[in-house]
Amino acid sequence: MTWIQRSVTLDPKPRGFHLVTDEVVSAVPEMRDLRVGLLDVFIQHTSASLTINENAAPAVRGDMERHFNDMVPEDQPYYQHTIEGSDDMPAHIKASMLDTSLSIPVEEGELAFGTWQGIYLNEHRNNGGARSLMLTLRGEKG
Amino acid sequence: MTWIQRSVTLDPKPRGFHLVTDEVVSAVPEMRDLRVGLLDVFIQHTSASLTINENAAPAVRGDMERHFNDMVPEDQPYYQHTIEGSDDMPAHIKASMLDTSLSIPVEEGELAFGTWQGIYLNEHRNNGGARSLMLTLRGEKG
Amino acid sequence: MTWIQRSVTLDPKPRGFHLVTDEVVSAVPEMRDLRVGLLDVFIQHTSASLTINENAAPAVRGDMERHFNDMVPEDQPYYQHTIEGSDDMPAHIKASMLDTSLSIPVEEGELAFGTWQGIYLNEHRNNGGARSLMLTLRGEKG
Repeated sequence: MTWIQRSVTLDPKPRGFHLVTDEVVSAVPEMRDLRVGLLDVFIQHTSASLTINENAAPAVRGDMERHFNDMVPEDQPYYQHTIEGSDDMPAHIKASMLDTSLSIPVEEGELAFGTWQGIYLNEHRNNGGARSLMLTLRGEKG
Repeated sequence: MTWIQRSVTLDPKPRGFHLVTDEVVSAVPEMRDLRVGLLDVFIQHTSASLTINENAAPAVRGDMERHFNDMVPEDQPYYQHTIEGSDDMPAHIKASMLDTSLSIPVEEGELAFGTWQGIYLNEHRNNGGARSLMLTLRGEKG
Repeated sequence: MTWIQRSVTLDPKPRGFHLVTDEVVSAVPEMRDLRVGLLDVFIQHTSASLTINENAAPAVRGDMERHFNDMVPEDQPYYQHTIEGSDDMPAHIKASMLDTSLSIPVEEGELAFGTWQGIYLNEHRNNGGARSLMLTLRGEKG
């Protein structure tokens, strides 16, 4: 039984949905040795989030950003938490609608993703800065 | 410590929310031997999803479909990813609003569900076809 | 390798989003002994939910309640599951948009939260009553 936990810092990204599968996978090379396991990806922030979605067409990521902006508009009259800027309260709401943690199966040393799946970092702030992830990998060696 | 990982294919289902608890549980009979554990259910697709919700009234599942169609309409003017049909981009958005993976506690050989909880497969495409799940069960025997 | 599973009952709370980090953490004192691990928090209900969000400004929790009420209104004409009251079907939808389970990394005996993260119990019913959580803690001792 292997338990590995590692902190990863992602470079600042513009507001929007970003594919970060390679950055996550390269941070836990020990995954190659697992016959069976799980990788937990946790983001240590409340105004950015994670999700798993389509890894090919960039327009999917743009449409995600446009639709979440439509469902969770800035400057709603009922927002009371406004002191950190118009993009802050919508960022908190989007973060709860999407994921703070992902649980991904590991099979024979690789993420057991479907063909079209990838890991997204969703940056909901205009200037969110660097974002910290905590990765927890556990499982059985081959 | 037991680790079991198993792929399950669900038969094609019409667009909508479907109760699949029995199909999932029957795929991992080894669960009966666990005193304590967790079952992770992961869907290997980005246009169908999972969630846990009410296992009795079928109208709940119909209302879920109707409300998600209202919150995430087809043919929004800002969608750019349109080549796979009107139902495709809403399917990706719904999949991220719902769950790609579920983590369910196992207690004395059974899912530690509340009385009214069940596992839903949410089919967001009009013709999504068969869907693959990866189940990962781990825990301690009694 | 440690596996601990424990049921926790939270006192009845009014409709809205509530910070419950301390109640959860105090229920698993064995966490202090873990060098590395994960805490899974599972709610055994379908009309209340969990999420991780901002642990300081109470206005964030009020804005969450107001915005989810706006995105998931009561008495939509297409709701068919109406026999349990106007607040029931929206509660099921909100529960699926938010989380039934949380997976939180444990590092050196503490939750590996970012500075501003806390655990919310989201009560979606007007009179939801007491709510049951199942906590599953596992990991390696230091």
